[in-house]
Formats: sequence, structure tokens, C-alpha cells
Amino acid sequence: MNFQNNVGNLKVILVEPSGPLNVGSVARLCSNFEVEELRIVSPKCNIKSLEAKKMALKGQKYLDNCKIFEDLENAIFDCDLVIASCGRVEISKNSFFESSEDLFNWISSFKKINNLAIIFGREDRGLTNDELLLANKTFNIPTSKNNPSLNLSHAVSIFLYELKKSSKRNLNSEQQVFNLASSKQIHDSFVEIEEMLLGVGYLLKHTSRAKISKFKNYIFRANTSMHEINVLRGIVHQINWYLNNSKRN
Amino acid sequence: MNFQNNVGNLKVILVEPSGPLNVGSVARLCSNFEVEELRIVSPKCNIKSLEAKKMALKGQKYLDNCKIFEDLENAIFDCDLVIASCGRVEISKNSFFESSEDLFNWISSFKKINNLAIIFGREDRGLTNDELLLANKTFNIPTSKNNPSLNLSHAVSIFLYELKKSSKRNLNSEQQVFNLASSKQIHDSFVEIEEMLLGVGYLLKHTSRAKISKFKNYIFRANTSMHEINVLRGIVHQINWYLNNSKRN
Repeated sequence: MNFQNNVGNLKVILVEPSGPLNVGSVARLCSNFEVEELRIVSPKCNIKSLEAKKMALKGQKYLDNCKIFEDLENAIFDCDLVIASCGRVEISKNSFFESSEDLFNWISSFKKINNLAIIFGREDRGLTNDELLLANKTFNIPTSKNNPSLNLSHAVSIFLYELKKSSKRNLNSEQQVFNLASSKQIHDSFVEIEEMLLGVGYLLKHTSRAKISKFKNYIFRANTSMHEINVLRGIVHQINWYLNNSKRN
Repeated sequence: MNFQNNVGNLKVILVEPSGPLNVGSVARLCSNFEVEELRIVSPKCNIKSLEAKKMALKGQKYLDNCKIFEDLENAIFDCDLVIASCGRVEISKNSFFESSEDLFNWISSFKKINNLAIIFGREDRGLTNDELLLANKTFNIPTSKNNPSLNLSHAVSIFLYELKKSSKRNLNSEQQVFNLASSKQIHDSFVEIEEMLLGVGYLLKHTSRAKISKFKNYIFRANTSMHEINVLRGIVHQINWYLNNSKRN
């Protein structure tokens, strides 16, 4: 299925949704906007209940074929690019996008994204900071200061609408040839980076998480290419090897 | 309340909604996007039911203060500019807007719109052709050809999001000084125009409706000013007076 010119497959991922009406509504939206697959991380409701089906209408097949995952990390295992919806402006500022146009132009700028994931958090609390770090960029929808909290399916509808629209706008624009490192590749690198930084005493076990998060955030923002992350991994791998071997002697 | 720079008050108008969940969801959106008032034409459900309230959350006051009208014409009585959501592309083409950007730029181009109405039709059938004729412009959301039908509240969310966004974009742009004739003024003029055209034998009673509709559609598309519609009414009024008096003699 071709959602937009440069996006092969679009995966909508909900993290711990608790409302069956919301899940059903999102399934309908997946059908309205030609999403390839709906994935859910630890659903907190019965996603095949009558309530969900009632809202899904022609999007029923997205409920039937919905893939369930234990955590977000596993749910994005095959995704090249991950965008997270974020209601908290102070966090979304970190994504370095001043407007949604910038974000959608950025998505359109890649020659080919095989699997694009868009992730949406819990109805009451959104995504955790750790979950947000799995995303390359975040997306914030400007709303009223007095009542900023959008219903989950409304956030999904606006995101899918914008993505669909940007695909039309950029139909003929020149595309960047850029092989971005996937969210998973970056995540995996950080397991080795953390090991290294603990090994050399730069990080302490109890504070490493927070420090590593900042570094990870930077790597995401920098639009790191596949080649660049491989160079980084090579260096880290070598340092780790050296550290382990020198300890033994 | 100030929804956007040049829009004094924004009224969301639903025509014959039949789903209380939808009405409640729209009430929540009104609160998310600082709408001034929710109006409903002949509701086909209990808009103060538990289901509606469950979805409204902090938008509860929009249900409590919702104004009910018998027909759409009365519901837009005080509105300067009326935009209709339309799922049927063949009709929305008439609105002469190629993209939503054009529409929202157009809305932003007016110096002041005291009351802007956005209208949404029935869940199953949308707005009738007669109802669409009460709008200055229509707005269509591009969706999948296989399943184009959006849930009512999703259409509302996308429209309000776009409007909010365009208000930011055009914050400092130069604004047109243009006093557009209101939807009601144009509508009222056509009562006299129809009388005249029937009087001079241009229209026949049983076909006048369809012919008048085309003419009306044209006047809307032409962005007729208050001054222009007054000139038109003056002419028509005079002709009608002459026709009535010459009959008597």
C-alpha cells in the first residue's frame, strides 16, 4: 500500500489505550487514510469489543489484523522513521520543529521510508519520556491553554490528515537522498555506548539513564545517517572490546 | 473570545446529528480549540445524554449552553461568513478552492469576521444541496477513495486544527479591507430576485428553485461585498415595485 510518495507503509501505534471507542475510532481513521497496519502496545481494554467495532465501521479489518506488542521498543522493530505525538509543549520543543509544516516537509524530504511509524500515548498520560526517546521527532498539535487535552482519535485524525496533505504538496519536489539510521539502530547502539561509558567511568549506574537520554535525544535530532551510526558503533565496539580484554589481563 | 486574529466568534453548527457520542466529542473539540458556541439544527439524538457527556469531558458547557434551531437558515442568522464541510468532491469543486491552504488563507484575508460559522452535516448523508447553498465556501478533506467517509467529530477536529494553524501563519500578514455580504443578506436578496424573475416570466414556478440555486452559487463564489449586494437589492426592489404597480394600473 502506498500512503504517500516516499512512504512505503504507515504503521499507527497506540500505547496502552484504555478506551475501546478510541481504538475503534482509530481503526476507522486507518481505513480513511490508507494506513497499512494498526499496532497496539499492551492494550488496557478489549479492542475487539462491540464498542470498538461500533466505531470502526469499515475499519474493522484493522481491529481483526491488529498486532499486539509487549512494549514500544518491540512494536517499532522494523520501522525506519518514528514520529511521536506529544501533548506537552516543553518536550516537543526539543524536536526542533517550529511548525508542523517543517515536520511534514522533513518527512517528505526522504527518498524512501519503507516503514513509517506514528505513535500515540495513553489517553490520560501520553507517552513516557523513555518512550518519547524512541522517536526521531515529536509532533505537537496547538490547542487551547485552558483545555489542551485532545481526544486520542482526534490527535490521530489531525496527524493523518497532515501527512496525507503533505504527500500531495511535495509530489513533485526534489527529494533528498539520505539514508537515515533507524530508530532501532540508534537504540541498539546505545546499549553499547552505555556499556562503554560505564566501563570508562564516565557514567555511574544510578545516573546513567538520564545522561544517556540526553545524548540519545541529540543523536535523533542530528538526523544521523545509517553510515554515521555504523561508524559510531564501530568505534564504540572497538573501545568495549579493548576494555573487556584489558580487564582480563 | 478570540479564536483567531480576525475572527471574533466561531460558531460550530451541526445539522441533525444522530450520534450522542459524536455530539459529545464535538463539544470537547469546541473547548480544545476555543470555539465560542455550539449550535445544533434539529438534533436526532439526546445531546444531554450520559453518552454525550462522557465524551465531552471539559467541553460539558458547550452541551449545557448549546442553542437548538429548527433549520440551518435560522442557525446562521447572525453569521458573516459560512463555511460548510462537504464530503462529496464533485460539489466541493464548485467552491473554487484547490487546496485547504487557499480556503484558510481566504478566511484570514478579511479584516474582521464578527461571526464565522462552520457547518457539518448528518453522519450518513452530509448536507443537502440546498443547505450547501447557504455557505459561502465548502471545505473537503481528502481521504481514501475506498473509504472516504470520516467520522463527524474527526472532520470537525481537522477543520478546527487548520483554522487555528492558519491564524498563526497569518498573524502579521497584510489584511484585505473587504466588507463581505453576509450569507443571510445574500439569502434575503434572493427572495426578491426570485419574485422578480417569476414576475417577468424568466422563471417558472416549478423550475425556479434549481435555476435560482445556480445563480446563488455564483454570487457566493464571487465574494460579493455588502455594498454590491445592496446595489443589487436596490435594482431588484425597484423592478419589483414597478412590476407590482404596473399590474394594478
